[in-house]
Amino acid sequence: MMTQLELARKGIISSQMKEVARMEGREEAFILKGLAAGEIVLPANLRHTGLVPRGIGKGLRTKVNVNIGTSPDFGDLDSEMEKMRIAVDYGADAVMDLSTGGDISSIRQAIIDACPLPVGTVPIYQAGIDAVDKYGAIVDMTADDMFAAIEDHARDGVDFMTVHCGVTQASIARLKQQRRVTGIVSRGGAFLAGWMLHRNEENPLFCRYDRLLEIAHEYDIVLSLGDGLRPGSLEDATDRAQVEELIILGELVERAREAGVQVIVEGPGHLPLDQVACNVQLEKSVCRGAPFYVLGPLVTDIGAGYDHITGAIGGAVAAAAGADFLCYVTPTEHLSLPDAEDVKEGVIASRIAAHAGDIVKGVSGARELDKNMARARRKFDWATQADLSLNPERVRRFHDVKHSTSGRACSMCGKYCAMAMVEEYLGDALNRE
Amino acid sequence: MMTQLELARKGIISSQMKEVARMEGREEAFILKGLAAGEIVLPANLRHTGLVPRGIGKGLRTKVNVNIGTSPDFGDLDSEMEKMRIAVDYGADAVMDLSTGGDISSIRQAIIDACPLPVGTVPIYQAGIDAVDKYGAIVDMTADDMFAAIEDHARDGVDFMTVHCGVTQASIARLKQQRRVTGIVSRGGAFLAGWMLHRNEENPLFCRYDRLLEIAHEYDIVLSLGDGLRPGSLEDATDRAQVEELIILGELVERAREAGVQVIVEGPGHLPLDQVACNVQLEKSVCRGAPFYVLGPLVTDIGAGYDHITGAIGGAVAAAAGADFLCYVTPTEHLSLPDAEDVKEGVIASRIAAHAGDIVKGVSGARELDKNMARARRKFDWATQADLSLNPERVRRFHDVKHSTSGRACSMCGKYCAMAMVEEYLGDALNRE
Repeated sequence: MMTQLELARKGIISSQMKEVARMEGREEAFILKGLAAGEIVLPANLRHTGLVPRGIGKGLRTKVNVNIGTSPDFGDLDSEMEKMRIAVDYGADAVMDLSTGGDISSIRQAIIDACPLPVGTVPIYQAGIDAVDKYGAIVDMTADDMFAAIEDHARDGVDFMTVHCGVTQASIARLKQQRRVTGIVSRGGAFLAGWMLHRNEENPLFCRYDRLLEIAHEYDIVLSLGDGLRPGSLEDATDRAQVEELIILGELVERAREAGVQVIVEGPGHLPLDQVACNVQLEKSVCRGAPFYVLGPLVTDIGAGYDHITGAIGGAVAAAAGADFLCYVTPTEHLSLPDAEDVKEGVIASRIAAHAGDIVKGVSGARELDKNMARARRKFDWATQADLSLNPERVRRFHDVKHSTSGRACSMCGKYCAMAMVEEYLGDALNRE
Repeated sequence: MMTQLELARKGIISSQMKEVARMEGREEAFILKGLAAGEIVLPANLRHTGLVPRGIGKGLRTKVNVNIGTSPDFGDLDSEMEKMRIAVDYGADAVMDLSTGGDISSIRQAIIDACPLPVGTVPIYQAGIDAVDKYGAIVDMTADDMFAAIEDHARDGVDFMTVHCGVTQASIARLKQQRRVTGIVSRGGAFLAGWMLHRNEENPLFCRYDRLLEIAHEYDIVLSLGDGLRPGSLEDATDRAQVEELIILGELVERAREAGVQVIVEGPGHLPLDQVACNVQLEKSVCRGAPFYVLGPLVTDIGAGYDHITGAIGGAVAAAAGADFLCYVTPTEHLSLPDAEDVKEGVIASRIAAHAGDIVKGVSGARELDKNMARARRKFDWATQADLSLNPERVRRFHDVKHSTSGRACSMCGKYCAMAMVEEYLGDALNRE
C-alpha cells in the first residue's frame, strides 16, 4: 500500500485527490503536485470509513479544526457527539478529539465512526492518563506505552495525530536558558517534559521517530508535529525555546517525507500581532513549506471570555500570511471546558478568520462569496444574505425580530437607508453588475 | 476664547490636557506637542459639563467609539440611555448618538447631560429628518437648515461631529466614472449626494466650509470629516471615488488647522485584510497626520450576524498600522438596530482590537496588562484574571459554573493542566518574574 504522498509522487491520482480537487475548484494536477511536494496533505486513514476528505495546504482554502472531547471534570459521549455535529453543521474541516475523561477509547471510536471530517487526536494524552491508572503517575509510563497508544489510535482510524517530537533534551535546555513567564502550556508537551526530566531520558517520540513513521505509514496518518514549547503568553512569543523546537521539527519534516509519510507542523499560540506573519514565514522556511497549523494565534492575553475573537484576529492575519490550517479557540478558552454553544461560536469565528485570509491569498472562489453578498445587500435580498452567511438562522432572527416597518431596508436606518436613497436619486448610475 | 489646538500652539497646558496626560501616562509636553501638530485631538465642547476628556491620536491609547441612537422603527430615550451606560461601563472612549427616530433633540440632550465621555453626532441626519417633516422630502432642505442643525448640536454640547464635506460634485463625478457594487452606504453621504444631484448644487458643507469652521471654533468642536463615499463592500474598497474624497478631506484638514479648529478624518468601512494598512498610511500621508477614525474596517462581507468579529480583525490591524480611533461594530450590523446586549458585545470586541494594536504600537502600559494576565495564569489566580479581563462577570461565570474538582486548574484540563504539571516536575526552573 502507498500513502497519498507516495501516490502523488508516482503521479497516481487517488479518489481522495479527485474529491479534494473538486471541492477546491482546482485541477487534479495541482493537488497532485502540492501533495508530492509535501506542501499539501490529505488526512485519510485507510480505516476511516465514511470520510469526506479535505486537503490542507498551499493554494487551498484555509481549513478550520474544532477541538472537542471530555475533561476529567466534564463531558461524556453524548455531549461530545453533539459538539462534533455542531462542528460539521457550522462548516469545520476537521475535528480533534482531545478527551481526557470518561471512557476515552469508546468516545474516540464513536466520533470516528460518525464523523465525515478528518479526525485528529493526541495519543500521548491517553498514554499518560492510562499510566496514572496503571502506575499511579505519568512519569512511570513506558516508551512502549506511548507507542501502544499511538497504534491504538491508528487502528481506530485517526486521520491525523499530534506528536510532540520536538520536545527534546536539547530544546528543554534552551527553555531553561530562556526562562519564561508561562513556562510550558502544551498539555502533551508538559506530559513529555515532565517524563523526560524525571527520568533523565530522551523523548521516545524523538529518539524512536522511525517507529512512529512506520505506524503513520501503515495507516497513512498525517503526523502533526506538535509545538510542545509554544508560547503561552505574549511575553514568551517567538523566543529561543520555541524557535529551537521549530528547527527540530523542520528536520523531522524531512525525515517524514523521506519515509513517504505526510506531515504538518503546529504553531503558536500567543503572539503579538506584528509577530504573526514572521512566525508563518519562519515555519514555511525552516520546515520547507510543510502546511502550518496554528492555534489561534491569540494576539492578546487579556481576552479571557472572548478568546474566539482574539484568536480570529490572529488567525486571519496568519491565514493571509500563508497559514493553512487554523485551530479554533472558543470563548471559554483558559477558563473551562467549552459546551456546544461555545463550540459553535468558536468555529464561526475561525471560519471568518480563514475566509478573511483566503480573500487575500487569492483562494479560488473566495472573493466571489463576498461579491454575491454585496450584490444581495444592494438588492435588499435578505434571504440570500442569510444563505451566504455563516449562521443563516441567526441572521434571519436578527433581521426578522426587529424588522423595519418602512420599506425593504433593515431597522438600523429604516426609511433613511443610504442604499435605498441612492437608488431613488441616482437609479443605476453608480452600479456595476 | 481659544480651542485646545490654539492653546497648545501657544504652549498653554489646559486642565483637559493635564487630565489626558495623566490618563495616558505621558508627559504633558507630549500631549501639548501632539495637539499643536494636529496629530492629537481633544474633543471637549465648552458646553459639555461633566466631561472626562479623552485624547485621540498619535502615541496615545487607541480609542473606541460606540454608536447608539434610535431608528425610525426602534429605540427610545430609555433604551438609548441604557446603551450609553453600557458603553461607559465596558470601557468605550466616546459615544455617538445617531438617533433618527423619536424626539431626537431630547434624546441627544439627555445623553450629553449624562455621558462622561465625549459625545459625537451627525447633524445632517437631523436636518434631513426635519426636512421630511417640514417640506416632505430631504432634497427640499435648505443649506441654512443644515447649518441650523449644526449650530443646535454645537450649543447642546456635542464634542465631535461628523460632517461629510468631501461629498462634492467632483468626488461624485469620480464615483460615476468608477461605478460600484454597493454605491453609497454612508447615510449622511447619501442624504447629501441625493440633495446635490437633485438640485444640481454643490455640497454646502464644502462650499460654505468656512462657516462650519466658525461654529466648530466657537464651541471647540472636533470636526470628524466623514467618508460619505466609503466602500460598502470589498469589491468597492480603495477605489478612485474613495481616494478622491480622501484627497479633498486632506485639503480640508489643512483649512481647519489654519482656522484653529481640531479635526480628524473618517475611513472605511469594508476592506480586504491586505488593504487595511495601506488605507491607514494613505490617510496619514494625504491628511498630514490627522487622527484616523475607522469604521471596523470589516475584512469580509459575509460576516453578517458576527460583524463585531470581522470588525475586530480589521480594527486590530488598522490600530497596529496607526489608526487612532475605532468605531465599534455590533453583531447586528447590516441587519437591525442593536440592543444593549449587542452594544456590549460590540464594545468589547473593539476594545480587544484596540488593545491588540496598542501592544504593537508600543502604547504606554499596554504590554504590562498582558504580562500581568500571564503571571496571574501561572499562579492560578482566577480573581486577578477576571479583574484584568474586559468582562469580569463573564470570566467568573465561565470559570465558576464549570469549575474543576481537582486542584487549582480550570475544567478544560483539570488534573492534567500543563502549567500545574510543569510546576510539579520543574518547579521554578523555567520561570522568570
